[in-house]
Amino acid sequence: MTTPSRDTLETFENPYPDRNYLIDTVCPEFTSLCPKTGHPDFGTLTISYVADQVCYELKSLKLYLQEFRNYGAFYERVTNTILDDLVAVTSPRWMKIEASFTPRGGIKTVVTVEHGTRPV
Amino acid sequence: MTTPSRDTLETFENPYPDRNYLIDTVCPEFTSLCPKTGHPDFGTLTISYVADQVCYELKSLKLYLQEFRNYGAFYERVTNTILDDLVAVTSPRWMKIEASFTPRGGIKTVVTVEHGTRPV
Amino acid sequence: MTTPSRDTLETFENPYPDRNYLIDTVCPEFTSLCPKTGHPDFGTLTISYVADQVCYELKSLKLYLQEFRNYGAFYERVTNTILDDLVAVTSPRWMKIEASFTPRGGIKTVVTVEHGTRPV
Amino acid sequence: MTTPSRDTLETFENPYPDRNYLIDTVCPEFTSLCPKTGHPDFGTLTISYVADQVCYELKSLKLYLQEFRNYGAFYERVTNTILDDLVAVTSPRWMKIEASFTPRGGIKTVVTVEHGTRPV
Amino acid sequence: MTTPSRDTLETFENPYPDRNYLIDTVCPEFTSLCPKTGHPDFGTLTISYVADQVCYELKSLKLYLQEFRNYGAFYERVTNTILDDLVAVTSPRWMKIEASFTPRGGIKTVVTVEHGTRPV
Amino acid sequence: MTTPSRDTLETFENPYPDRNYLIDTVCPEFTSLCPKTGHPDFGTLTISYVADQVCYELKSLKLYLQEFRNYGAFYERVTNTILDDLVAVTSPRWMKIEASFTPRGGIKTVVTVEHGTRPV
Amino acid sequence: MTTPSRDTLETFENPYPDRNYLIDTVCPEFTSLCPKTGHPDFGTLTISYVADQVCYELKSLKLYLQEFRNYGAFYERVTNTILDDLVAVTSPRWMKIEASFTPRGGIKTVVTVEHGTRPV
Amino acid sequence: MTTPSRDTLETFENPYPDRNYLIDTVCPEFTSLCPKTGHPDFGTLTISYVADQVCYELKSLKLYLQEFRNYGAFYERVTNTILDDLVAVTSPRWMKIEASFTPRGGIKTVVTVEHGTRPV
Amino acid sequence: MTTPSRDTLETFENPYPDRNYLIDTVCPEFTSLCPKTGHPDFGTLTISYVADQVCYELKSLKLYLQEFRNYGAFYERVTNTILDDLVAVTSPRWMKIEASFTPRGGIKTVVTVEHGTRPV
Amino acid sequence: MTTPSRDTLETFENPYPDRNYLIDTVCPEFTSLCPKTGHPDFGTLTISYVADQVCYELKSLKLYLQEFRNYGAFYERVTNTILDDLVAVTSPRWMKIEASFTPRGGIKTVVTVEHGTRPV
Repeated sequence: MTTPSRDTLETFENPYPDRNYLIDTVCPEFTSLCPKTGHPDFGTLTISYVADQVCYELKSLKLYLQEFRNYGAFYERVTNTILDDLVAVTSPRWMKIEASFTPRGGIKTVVTVEHGTRPV
Repeated sequence: MTTPSRDTLETFENPYPDRNYLIDTVCPEFTSLCPKTGHPDFGTLTISYVADQVCYELKSLKLYLQEFRNYGAFYERVTNTILDDLVAVTSPRWMKIEASFTPRGGIKTVVTVEHGTRPV
Repeated sequence: MTTPSRDTLETFENPYPDRNYLIDTVCPEFTSLCPKTGHPDFGTLTISYVADQVCYELKSLKLYLQEFRNYGAFYERVTNTILDDLVAVTSPRWMKIEASFTPRGGIKTVVTVEHGTRPV
Repeated sequence: MTTPSRDTLETFENPYPDRNYLIDTVCPEFTSLCPKTGHPDFGTLTISYVADQVCYELKSLKLYLQEFRNYGAFYERVTNTILDDLVAVTSPRWMKIEASFTPRGGIKTVVTVEHGTRPV
Repeated sequence: MTTPSRDTLETFENPYPDRNYLIDTVCPEFTSLCPKTGHPDFGTLTISYVADQVCYELKSLKLYLQEFRNYGAFYERVTNTILDDLVAVTSPRWMKIEASFTPRGGIKTVVTVEHGTRPV
Repeated sequence: MTTPSRDTLETFENPYPDRNYLIDTVCPEFTSLCPKTGHPDFGTLTISYVADQVCYELKSLKLYLQEFRNYGAFYERVTNTILDDLVAVTSPRWMKIEASFTPRGGIKTVVTVEHGTRPV
Repeated sequence: MTTPSRDTLETFENPYPDRNYLIDTVCPEFTSLCPKTGHPDFGTLTISYVADQVCYELKSLKLYLQEFRNYGAFYERVTNTILDDLVAVTSPRWMKIEASFTPRGGIKTVVTVEHGTRPV
Repeated sequence: MTTPSRDTLETFENPYPDRNYLIDTVCPEFTSLCPKTGHPDFGTLTISYVADQVCYELKSLKLYLQEFRNYGAFYERVTNTILDDLVAVTSPRWMKIEASFTPRGGIKTVVTVEHGTRPV
Repeated sequence: MTTPSRDTLETFENPYPDRNYLIDTVCPEFTSLCPKTGHPDFGTLTISYVADQVCYELKSLKLYLQEFRNYGAFYERVTNTILDDLVAVTSPRWMKIEASFTPRGGIKTVVTVEHGTRPV
Repeated sequence: MTTPSRDTLETFENPYPDRNYLIDTVCPEFTSLCPKTGHPDFGTLTISYVADQVCYELKSLKLYLQEFRNYGAFYERVTNTILDDLVAVTSPRWMKIEASFTPRGGIKTVVTVEHGTRPV
């Protein structure tokens, strides 16, 4: 079982660092494993951020998220972990992740985590 | 006729207590009985909260909500009761429940209750 | 031609008067008559309120709204009248009614009236 | 309480009697009374037909349907009656009525009646 | 635990037995228990039929379906049983039931059963 | 008041006359006048055809349909007239027009006319 | 070519001048001409206002908007003109018009104009 | 890398073998690997069948489909393989699988395979 | 200006030639140039086919369709050309292409072409 | 390969410079090339602004955006560049561009950039 690593994430220079602008990235193909049952979980991650000096590169984001495919993690932990990793690698001015998981036992869960305050 | 009890609810330690983050839980399979007619009511509960030291465990939430299956309660009371029970068990920083019931007599009802102030 | 009367409305004691909570009631089967043409009008009323000491009882609300079935009233007047009646009977902390009528002559009208200020 | 009468229906000469063509008329503002409870029922009528020598006039159809506003009739009977009346007045080559009523007691009903065989 | 009984179903005389017409009844509030886990199942039943001499009465249908609330039955069996009961009580010219259940384990099931051949 | 004329319609040679293929043209911006009230009517025309030797040119179709802007015509007549004009100019193997008009007096009308039999 | 005139607009006395309430009027059948090409434009006007002493009468609004049918005007000008006319005739406490036009050259335009500040 | 095996599939006795009835199973959480790139594919499988003597058990179906999680297979092959396996294990009177995959390179693919002829 | 060539298309061996199964490919990112105005056209191609000995490879299909990006072609011709090319390269048992183009001058066009008869 | 130039953009005098009003322009047919792979990207631009002395002319906007058709640019850069060009040419009181691109590798991106502060 691989462990997701923030080292997979690559960045490129923010082409417009003088302007506070918003980047939304929607990833509807996220899947990980339930650590209790071993069954797969599925969800959609929506990552929003205002970059500072660097942006994350999309291909590397995709590979990083694929590392959760056979990794066991609860909803709350996995969402916070991804925020921590993306913040560590890109040091954004602001970042928010909304993770919406498909229903289990008839109950659907959405976890929303945020780093910093969105610049006006 | 069983009586729903908050003792059914279990919790686990909040994995990120230092961060104010949002958890939304959508339960579209809620059903109770109308205390006046004995006929079943159906609704969708959306529970949103910012956990403090503990989160509620989803399987136990499901079992707790199932205890209302043969229990008679008016819309306003049942929604407030569930809020009181979840607050008593998890002591959240903030919690809101929106309960949307299917139409009766051509009239649909939504009850929204809140505990505390949502942290910025 | 009957005249709608607020005497039809019944109330029950607010089970949680210490908490400011929201009740939304959606009534998609409202119909009255156009006072000019005599033709029926159709609309959806959405009543939202924060109760104080009493809530309106839903069956009596349905009967009260049915009294408009053969009553002639313009959109603006009928919406304000219903607000006045519900406020008189329930003395809510806050109440809002949005009345959305089906198109006439290709034009659709929505009237929104409010009583008091919604408690935070 | 008025009784709906087919005498209200007016017709005009079919402008293209040599061609079998389809006319669909959708009436989402139908309302009658439940003969058991006296409470109003609401529904959408979709009338489809291939005219022979005459078409029904829309304004008169609207007035005819309004005559059901204070008339008590079960779903099955009201739909068959309207078909009988429209067939009597227009003698169409083919006619179908689909009447879709809003839910009562959580149960929705659609009644579909047909006269003749639709010409190819 | 009650056992659903076809004796609960009542009928009324078909007001138009000379015409083959279609009645669709949509019941989105069906719930029963999973015989394996004891957990509730939820589904929407769509019953379509061409009546012969009698129609089922809607209030009694609602009561009959409510008898499944605390009854354990697999999807395939419950749908076939309801068809058998409705056919036994109404002897329709044709009847079809489509039962669409909410997802369990991420998998949604629809069972469709039919009695007789639909008259043209 | 101009009168629509089929002379406005232009054609071009069917580039694949050996193949029976379908062309659908959707025109949601059709408007004419009601001959009784003088008020404008609005509708969406969907023209489907299998061309023989020529296709209609889209710009000329648009100009032709604009000629109805200040022209008075009932729904049934206008739809049949447009079919006649398009058939006269393009001699198609098959053509169908579905004209869906916006509601008047709460009643919506769709007229569907057809020329010939669609080739398999 | 007629020129739209605010003289067409009629008003009636605001039945509840002591209450600040909102009236929304949606007109999906607006059409004018492009002054450059002469081709028709189509759009939906949504007029929202808080009346002071008078409300506009809906039939006269419909006739006023119909006067644009053969009138040439750019999107920005036509929207501002209608606001000016309605403000001149009704002196509202606040008014906003959102005019959403259908795409031309693959590009869709929405113009939103406002008069005064919406009363709380 | 595990290889999916039909041995995982379990069956139970068809409770109504004398009736030809339809079972639809919708599995929106299917995922496998692209054999060329190693990247994950995602899709929704809709399995429809008329059982003969046995039905497949849903929990075992879920486990069987999970065995494709780390298995490399092209769209066409994987869909045909699943049909072959389900047919081998259940010997149905008729079966159809529609597999709808999420877009790759802006192109979405749906593969539909069928076994036998659906009984009337 | 490049000319699209069927030589770009590659195939792979049909893995299940003994079974008639359906492959649908949806390409919402098709764009070409209008030969009259030089302006770009946009559309969605839905290609459906029953393969014989070979299937088209998706990456090569994407490259082939990209060759239309700077190529001028009318709707009817471009759709027939793509069908001819795909048929020439894959010799399918049956193929159909539905090309749905975005509106021009307020008019939307869909062209549907077919090769052979779909095997039952 | 052409380079997009702001010289293509034309303006016209703001007809109502004394009023702060909003113009939204939605362009769903934007396409450029990925500078890394050379493959086309597709997106929808929504431009919102409050004009000062001039508005951009829509035909010239369309031609300007078409210049990106064969131009290679990353999402973040292309959105900021278009904002810079439109601001340089129109000197608006406020402008915002939301660029929503179709998914690549299963990931969808939206870039939102803003110039100035929207006047109240």
